[in-house]
Amino acid sequence: MLIWNLKKLNSINKIYLNIAQIQKIVSNDLENVNNIIIQNIGNEVPMISELSKHILAAGGKRIRPIITLLTSKLCNYEGKNHLSLAACIEFIHTATLLHDDVIDESKLRRGVATANDIFGNKTSVLVGDFLFSRSFELMVENGSKQILEVLSSASSTIAKGEVLQLTTVNDCSTSKETYLNIINSKTASLFAAAAEISAILSNKNKLIQNALMTYGQKLGIAFQLTDDALDYIGSENLGKEIGDDFKEGKITLPVIICIKKANKEEILFWNKTIENLNQTDQDLNTALILMKKYKAIEETLALANKYCSEAINALEVFPSSEEKLALESLAKIAINRSK
Amino acid sequence: MLIWNLKKLNSINKIYLNIAQIQKIVSNDLENVNNIIIQNIGNEVPMISELSKHILAAGGKRIRPIITLLTSKLCNYEGKNHLSLAACIEFIHTATLLHDDVIDESKLRRGVATANDIFGNKTSVLVGDFLFSRSFELMVENGSKQILEVLSSASSTIAKGEVLQLTTVNDCSTSKETYLNIINSKTASLFAAAAEISAILSNKNKLIQNALMTYGQKLGIAFQLTDDALDYIGSENLGKEIGDDFKEGKITLPVIICIKKANKEEILFWNKTIENLNQTDQDLNTALILMKKYKAIEETLALANKYCSEAINALEVFPSSEEKLALESLAKIAINRSK
Repeated sequence: MLIWNLKKLNSINKIYLNIAQIQKIVSNDLENVNNIIIQNIGNEVPMISELSKHILAAGGKRIRPIITLLTSKLCNYEGKNHLSLAACIEFIHTATLLHDDVIDESKLRRGVATANDIFGNKTSVLVGDFLFSRSFELMVENGSKQILEVLSSASSTIAKGEVLQLTTVNDCSTSKETYLNIINSKTASLFAAAAEISAILSNKNKLIQNALMTYGQKLGIAFQLTDDALDYIGSENLGKEIGDDFKEGKITLPVIICIKKANKEEILFWNKTIENLNQTDQDLNTALILMKKYKAIEETLALANKYCSEAINALEVFPSSEEKLALESLAKIAINRSK
Repeated sequence: MLIWNLKKLNSINKIYLNIAQIQKIVSNDLENVNNIIIQNIGNEVPMISELSKHILAAGGKRIRPIITLLTSKLCNYEGKNHLSLAACIEFIHTATLLHDDVIDESKLRRGVATANDIFGNKTSVLVGDFLFSRSFELMVENGSKQILEVLSSASSTIAKGEVLQLTTVNDCSTSKETYLNIINSKTASLFAAAAEISAILSNKNKLIQNALMTYGQKLGIAFQLTDDALDYIGSENLGKEIGDDFKEGKITLPVIICIKKANKEEILFWNKTIENLNQTDQDLNTALILMKKYKAIEETLALANKYCSEAINALEVFPSSEEKLALESLAKIAINRSK
């Protein structure tokens, strides 16, 4: 009982780290990863290095490779292979981003523009392919058969999730289960792999491997749920615009919650705006009012919070350490990006 | 001397096989490969199986997997891994086809349509990604580290070639060397890998491995050169339309030859039609007349013929056999597809 109380107290009073503090813990490793990334983009084909640098340099906080670096440290890994594998994880992520940016003809006709406007659809696709195959080369060079299995399986799970998501766009009958299946595949599988490979690299037992995989997976789901909520509340930090998903007719949890609770009139609204993509300037505002009415954002963020706790709980098998605190903090950051 | 004469006579009188006869030699293996392809598309995500089947079922003569099957037979390989690896080669090829189909916004605006019109850009990209990552899973399951190195390197070489090709579109200053570099990367590298992996699978020495790699590479170049010539002469067999490359402003050898020999007026023509994509209905006809004037198609096909001979010569290290004849025939077929 005392132990339980102490644990509870500890978790209540815990002072989490911010992203800069986390990055500092793995700063040497992270610099090495960045160098590996630059080296592997190469300069043989100018268009590849130009676009890759554009997206990789602007590429945010390197959360996925940081997970590999921190979990490797947590497992007391003493080799160097985690560096290339962390770069490889970032390459897969970047390739996915590039391919996500591809515009459909129909959307183009409606005038929706994305980041790939600078370079064009085809460049995004082909440079994404290059990064993806380069990541594959890096893995083969640095990973065991078991690591290759985890990473190749994650890659095809991501692709399956992306296709599944595409089939639910504009489909108001999409269930919460399908949505969770999609984000588990398209987002959480890479987070899970990023953590799991550290246990394999360090020859840890199945228990540790599963703990890290679970940490990554739950964190990934929490991350995506938060992302999907942020699309309707915005974030100063991330410079995010409100309503991109709505304008594309993408079905995310906030919309699913509203549709489930909708009255007849509201059903017509969602069918018009999401299913038929027939939207006026006022419609996003109406959507936001409905989300407030049904507490859809709160419910989404509460679910993200639940997954965040599960991610942190998965780390219980590890003794306290700086890197464990950093991983717990990362989970907290994933769900607190709106602040 | 007598030996030389006999060899010469033999090569002159050699009766080559047609594609149906070649397929018959590996028919059992080919059926297994087709089954592996179907199994690995799966039916979890209907859109993936639908599009994959659409493109893989219509997917021509399976030339690349047949190369793996025939070269494995040539190396007396007795295992089963060549079947999955052949399927894997076809997956990579199909993914490339799907990504090649992606339309650029600018082209769409000019009304050029491709096969992906049925499914849309984004589906082509994401299903291509799925096939590519599935091929990766298959390799990891069935290939040694050395095979993974060959296949991952081929994949990134293909991507580099595709991007390089994209940067030369509409660029009338593209040299023959750059063009050969592009087709060597985007087409020949997969043919080379398809043949080389059989030597590795069968633990053959470096000499055999290089011979098969060279066979595949030369065959791939001959194949692409012929393809690029066919774009200006058409083929009843292949149901090919004339002038697709011209309409896209793609720089291939026939155009490079014409530009190199062009007078001032002709330079203006190529700049207008290829560089600025300012084309009238008459322009394709003018291009064909210029190609006739400078024997551009003959020169392209003569070069294809040279590479075909080099492919066949690379097989000299092997004793005569049914599968050797089939591989030689495949090289002949590659350059005779217009008939």
